[in-house]
Amino acid sequence: MKEADRTRLDALKASLARTWNELLTGSPIVRWLEEGGSDRTLFKIYLIETYHYVFHNSRNQALVATRIDNRDPAYLKYCLRHAYEEVGHEMMAMRDLQSLGVERTPDTLPPPLPSTEVFIAYLYWISQRGNPLQRLAYSLWAEGSYEYFGPVLDRIRRQMQLEPKQMSFFVEHAKVDEGHSKHVEDTILRHAHTEADWQALEDAALTSLRLVGGLLDGVWGAYQDLAEGRSQRFAFLKGAQP
Amino acid sequence: MKEADRTRLDALKASLARTWNELLTGSPIVRWLEEGGSDRTLFKIYLIETYHYVFHNSRNQALVATRIDNRDPAYLKYCLRHAYEEVGHEMMAMRDLQSLGVERTPDTLPPPLPSTEVFIAYLYWISQRGNPLQRLAYSLWAEGSYEYFGPVLDRIRRQMQLEPKQMSFFVEHAKVDEGHSKHVEDTILRHAHTEADWQALEDAALTSLRLVGGLLDGVWGAYQDLAEGRSQRFAFLKGAQP
Amino acid sequence: MKEADRTRLDALKASLARTWNELLTGSPIVRWLEEGGSDRTLFKIYLIETYHYVFHNSRNQALVATRIDNRDPAYLKYCLRHAYEEVGHEMMAMRDLQSLGVERTPDTLPPPLPSTEVFIAYLYWISQRGNPLQRLAYSLWAEGSYEYFGPVLDRIRRQMQLEPKQMSFFVEHAKVDEGHSKHVEDTILRHAHTEADWQALEDAALTSLRLVGGLLDGVWGAYQDLAEGRSQRFAFLKGAQP
Amino acid sequence: MKEADRTRLDALKASLARTWNELLTGSPIVRWLEEGGSDRTLFKIYLIETYHYVFHNSRNQALVATRIDNRDPAYLKYCLRHAYEEVGHEMMAMRDLQSLGVERTPDTLPPPLPSTEVFIAYLYWISQRGNPLQRLAYSLWAEGSYEYFGPVLDRIRRQMQLEPKQMSFFVEHAKVDEGHSKHVEDTILRHAHTEADWQALEDAALTSLRLVGGLLDGVWGAYQDLAEGRSQRFAFLKGAQP
Repeated sequence: MKEADRTRLDALKASLARTWNELLTGSPIVRWLEEGGSDRTLFKIYLIETYHYVFHNSRNQALVATRIDNRDPAYLKYCLRHAYEEVGHEMMAMRDLQSLGVERTPDTLPPPLPSTEVFIAYLYWISQRGNPLQRLAYSLWAEGSYEYFGPVLDRIRRQMQLEPKQMSFFVEHAKVDEGHSKHVEDTILRHAHTEADWQALEDAALTSLRLVGGLLDGVWGAYQDLAEGRSQRFAFLKGAQP
Repeated sequence: MKEADRTRLDALKASLARTWNELLTGSPIVRWLEEGGSDRTLFKIYLIETYHYVFHNSRNQALVATRIDNRDPAYLKYCLRHAYEEVGHEMMAMRDLQSLGVERTPDTLPPPLPSTEVFIAYLYWISQRGNPLQRLAYSLWAEGSYEYFGPVLDRIRRQMQLEPKQMSFFVEHAKVDEGHSKHVEDTILRHAHTEADWQALEDAALTSLRLVGGLLDGVWGAYQDLAEGRSQRFAFLKGAQP
Repeated sequence: MKEADRTRLDALKASLARTWNELLTGSPIVRWLEEGGSDRTLFKIYLIETYHYVFHNSRNQALVATRIDNRDPAYLKYCLRHAYEEVGHEMMAMRDLQSLGVERTPDTLPPPLPSTEVFIAYLYWISQRGNPLQRLAYSLWAEGSYEYFGPVLDRIRRQMQLEPKQMSFFVEHAKVDEGHSKHVEDTILRHAHTEADWQALEDAALTSLRLVGGLLDGVWGAYQDLAEGRSQRFAFLKGAQP
Repeated sequence: MKEADRTRLDALKASLARTWNELLTGSPIVRWLEEGGSDRTLFKIYLIETYHYVFHNSRNQALVATRIDNRDPAYLKYCLRHAYEEVGHEMMAMRDLQSLGVERTPDTLPPPLPSTEVFIAYLYWISQRGNPLQRLAYSLWAEGSYEYFGPVLDRIRRQMQLEPKQMSFFVEHAKVDEGHSKHVEDTILRHAHTEADWQALEDAALTSLRLVGGLLDGVWGAYQDLAEGRSQRFAFLKGAQP
């Protein structure tokens, strides 16, 4: 049984690796970076959307611990400890923005792009109404994302000549995540007992990762809309200088 | 002002028309139908997913009328009347399935596909936390969908040799929607007053329509997974005969 | 069975009658009125608290129709129709206040008294998490309340020399309720099937009625606090003249 | 300012002391104990109701940390740490019941009494919709309750000849609370800034304490109903022997 669960988790991680590859291979942002793209405006839009979804991470994680159908004390404690660790992380993205010369505060940012809202909506949905373990599936790939997304961030750093304090959100999360990643896997192995649990975890893992791919495509679309004058939503970013 | 709002609504409807076109042009299901595809299994999968999201339509519509920041009596009444009209419509999809020989009930259907869940999640999100008018944006295209989706349904009917009682959900909704469509537009014009309202309506309209495109692609993916033996989720549909 | 349900409903109505009697017999407001009390300030405080809880009546009624464990189409339709009928009734209490010379709007009223909040909190609780039929138990006594509370209102009208437009909320609800009352009883008889249903209905009926008793006692307490200078919360009412 | 806040907190604590006194003086359970009452059945009913409300303590505390209008990182962390500490405490009451020979599990307990439900409903209400600080007001008196309720528990212990393992819930909470109490006060002083905050804290503190008084009266009523044969709800407790 334990063995079968380990096998199942490894299969899920392999699916996630494949999905990451599809996502990065198909991403217009990645292609643009590989062709030498280096406009900080794109990174600023990405930071704004990062602020928006990260604002909700601790909240939707805490929501899992309010459910009356979640009765396992160890899992409830995991949810609350993890929610605690995530408190206020959105402010790192906010400060990175400010270090890049964007003179905005949480109250004066434009609202999230629709693709960011879809991602946020899905996280609340699984946290409130899905299988109570599904929120773990988001953490599973998020805590290990540096392995896949790290090279993209490195390109961004080099090509846009960013200092660490301008991308502290990503630097911090790359550091922090190693211990977390192991902890998420252990928690999944301790609590996923049934085929329905594993199916729910797989659905939530792949779906939330794909929605982040959608978020990135939304950032790209907004950047194109700005460049080609179709939208003024992010026009305030153009003059911003650190 | 009234004039500007009418113009704005027309622009939104034009955007929806373009999005419908992109969606249908890019849809593998539409291509397959145009090439003569005629397997009822695909239609059955689509009916199952239809059951799932329609189950929530009245509920998320009613949710808008529970919000303490929704205080306009006329709009509250609209929400409640519309929720009333939507009660139980999912049972039409259920009966169509049964007419096609699928011996299942709501309690024994497989759970929604992930792309269906994303659509449902987004509708609850806008209904509970978005601009209170956003739920109207979904109705705006849904009530007028027959214009775009009708030809696809006609192909399905002809190529799969379906009787009316096997697609009553779609037949009924094609009939009903004409008056509704006008009513939705009037309600939008009566209540949308600000640029933020119109932006929120546009975001919700285009996003919810794209998520239905995602739902259709999810149905196609599940059909392929079944055909190629990658998943047994819908295996029970194969033998089903009316 | 039908016979047993009718008997059960009659027993519940008898319990409600007893609870009304206890409540009115023990009420310091009723005693004060019987001793000739006639200060409009007390009635104004009562109208403010009425505004507050009535604001939520349509909303918590609609909430019952958002629940995924409420699947009976006839009952869902009942909930939505009733929520529709209750929309905006709080504005009657607001206009009565204004007819009494109170120059306030919903945004400038003091917040609800704690005992009013407890009543509101309980209605949301049963609507969202209780047996889905429990919201009917509140309607059961509310729609028939004129029988018990009418004489109190008559005293208020006479002793405080109020015109109809100064107590339109109560005048309207006395008229409207006769048909409603029958409708609520029929709905209960159609949907209450188990001992657990009847116990839940009885608990919610007697508890919500007692909480309204608490609300009235809270109004009396606030009136005393004002009269004896312990609180300035309702001081703005003193000078108010129509 | 700091000085004024300290004064305000002291006034609130003095109000709580007065309310505790009223509550204990007026309590039929306390009177019965003072007259030598010693039936374990009453204590068992009280443990069942304790199980019910304590089940929700961590959940409604976590709920405060899901609110988008709660943005202070230090307070969010307080809420999540406190929710973490409260996880599973209801199981102490469950085990005490089992030590007293009650062969029930959470799934086979009778549902909460109406007065217990009112208390639970109010806690969710303030946690979800009230001033975000209001949940602290419940902790303020709950963490310091041993000072007032301790003598009652001592009488129960002596007169009913209970062993520590039969009242571990209360023994543990008497120990734990000293540090907590200071922590709650510090948190209030750090976050309550406005007159509206202090009024909200006072309302929630006194109201939640009075509702616990109501819960105790509900326990007494249920005990009388059992003794006088009016209800069989707790009949299973009579034979229970450790």
